[in-house]
Amino acid sequence: MGEVSLAALLPPLRILLLGYGNVAQAFLPLLAARSEWLGRELGIRPLISGIGTQHQGFFVHATGIAATTLAEAADPLLLFRSQSQQVQDAATFIQKGRAAQATVLIELTSLNPQDGQPALSLIRLALQSGLHVITANKGPVAYGQAELEALARRHGVQFRFESTVMDGLPLINLAQFTLQAVQIISFRALLNTTSTLVLSMMEQGYSLDDAIRKAQQLGIAETDPWYDLDGWDAALKTTILVNNLLEGRITPAMVQREGIRNLPPADIFAAALAGASIRLVSRASRKQGVVSAQVGPERIESNDVLYVSKEVAGIPSIIVLETEAMGTITLIEHESLVRQTAYGVLSDLIAIVRQRSAR
Amino acid sequence: MGEVSLAALLPPLRILLLGYGNVAQAFLPLLAARSEWLGRELGIRPLISGIGTQHQGFFVHATGIAATTLAEAADPLLLFRSQSQQVQDAATFIQKGRAAQATVLIELTSLNPQDGQPALSLIRLALQSGLHVITANKGPVAYGQAELEALARRHGVQFRFESTVMDGLPLINLAQFTLQAVQIISFRALLNTTSTLVLSMMEQGYSLDDAIRKAQQLGIAETDPWYDLDGWDAALKTTILVNNLLEGRITPAMVQREGIRNLPPADIFAAALAGASIRLVSRASRKQGVVSAQVGPERIESNDVLYVSKEVAGIPSIIVLETEAMGTITLIEHESLVRQTAYGVLSDLIAIVRQRSAR
Repeated sequence: MGEVSLAALLPPLRILLLGYGNVAQAFLPLLAARSEWLGRELGIRPLISGIGTQHQGFFVHATGIAATTLAEAADPLLLFRSQSQQVQDAATFIQKGRAAQATVLIELTSLNPQDGQPALSLIRLALQSGLHVITANKGPVAYGQAELEALARRHGVQFRFESTVMDGLPLINLAQFTLQAVQIISFRALLNTTSTLVLSMMEQGYSLDDAIRKAQQLGIAETDPWYDLDGWDAALKTTILVNNLLEGRITPAMVQREGIRNLPPADIFAAALAGASIRLVSRASRKQGVVSAQVGPERIESNDVLYVSKEVAGIPSIIVLETEAMGTITLIEHESLVRQTAYGVLSDLIAIVRQRSAR
Repeated sequence: MGEVSLAALLPPLRILLLGYGNVAQAFLPLLAARSEWLGRELGIRPLISGIGTQHQGFFVHATGIAATTLAEAADPLLLFRSQSQQVQDAATFIQKGRAAQATVLIELTSLNPQDGQPALSLIRLALQSGLHVITANKGPVAYGQAELEALARRHGVQFRFESTVMDGLPLINLAQFTLQAVQIISFRALLNTTSTLVLSMMEQGYSLDDAIRKAQQLGIAETDPWYDLDGWDAALKTTILVNNLLEGRITPAMVQREGIRNLPPADIFAAALAGASIRLVSRASRKQGVVSAQVGPERIESNDVLYVSKEVAGIPSIIVLETEAMGTITLIEHESLVRQTAYGVLSDLIAIVRQRSAR
């Protein structure tokens, strides 16, 4: 009990959660479980000051409720709503949340692959209001990173998005913290789980339609699988990687993109028989300052490290980095779990607190 | 010229190089090439204040010579010697170097796998003298990390050793900076290039002796290959990884070790025929606070990510990390180059300067 009272004296870190789907529901207990660690290592006490969702409404609490209290509730959202004030929309949520002394907005709404809206505008508003922003949403990062980062700098806050790509690997923070002078020259990667799964089933003789149906049954492919199979998901992820690993400034439209929709099944089967494999490969390089990026099907031979996606089942992503100082490095993510995304959000939160106090 | 004069106004960072073999000879031009970057990003001007080697003697320069000046010389060591004072031994070198205002010792002498001496004692002396220490030498880290780190803390300096394991991957800094709250539970790894190469040749039908001879011809195996093949190298690396990734406090003697000396060649050949592979595997885990570590030959099936060492030629090391928050992550180093080791030393230098100025 003595420790609990001491913890209550730590300065609060008030958080707004925008979106309350799978990731937010995994993040809340993770934050609660690490509250003691956050207090000990960073000297903060995390409180939730707002939870907002499109369908259930937007709620702001006057002083904030401890993450641990919420996580213990059978229905954290219900508990939060019962003690909070409802506001009319997301923009008001951000403004009232800021007025209630929240300092971080965690944006976890669903992806709009066309233009990243409305998340992009809401993040803009949050940064302008002086909130640090963390997002796990590829849209606003792929379409607006440079602008949002400039905005964050202007308002003395941070914009972080570790969970947007390969969330089982701290790739963006890795590049930022530990590969600083390495100079990444190019990368090749498999970034889309659905297309890897569909292609590996077609290698075993499934038709495209059957492979899609099977992937949907397994809960991997979406009801509309074409966002994945036409390479849009890979193109968004490639955009984010190019802008963060290769110092590019591209948008998804600048990624040359070809999906696997029209691949002749016979070609896939023949490649497999010949001991090779066809995969949807993302490639990007920087040469004399010029960045190029593409997504498309490629034949992978068995002596290529990407071939591991055929031998080892269920690998959601692999990236092969060619660097100037370190030669070639491969990173493989073996699972794609909601708790990894939640953990990426937590790492961003930790990075924000550390950087804030380093100033 | 204007820029050069400005750079000359930056505060000097005086460095002592103990050992002048391959790594030091690759580090010096790398340091020179990054001098402008170091000035711009970190506000320092690297000078070499001492170079010492067992065979050619120990030399200290009164004020330090710019890394760029030395790197331009046909024979940097000769240039350095011609302008410096020779001292009698390594201990005097450290003391005189400190007196000449050096603040960092880079220890690059050769490995003594028995007890890490004399490097261990020299690093101790350097830390006690108030020098930050970087080493690329596994011996003192495997045998003395905890003691040396305590000593460093007591004297307000840092002790860094990124290059000691998997120097093509910033693994130790990765764990320190970006996997902080991930909690690594266990790892499996191939850490010894020579045994991987010898085993892969035996899979093709070579005898142990022939495989060793071939590996020696390729410049991979040492004249005495048993340090590698009996698992000592892997045991030292495993020790360092356990102590840094799993928060262990073990010494090499605590790693259960079995080499590949007595493996029946027929078993290796049979495994390969059956589509599997035998490798010298390092394993370690932490369960209920108890750490266990071992090195020994294991059969690897083709659906295991470590099998990539059979498909893709020349992989010096692979590590599979099982984490609490991020699931499983694999990191593969594709080349083992002296410039990677040199780069690891440079990253340590950067980390020291950054941490020093963060205080």
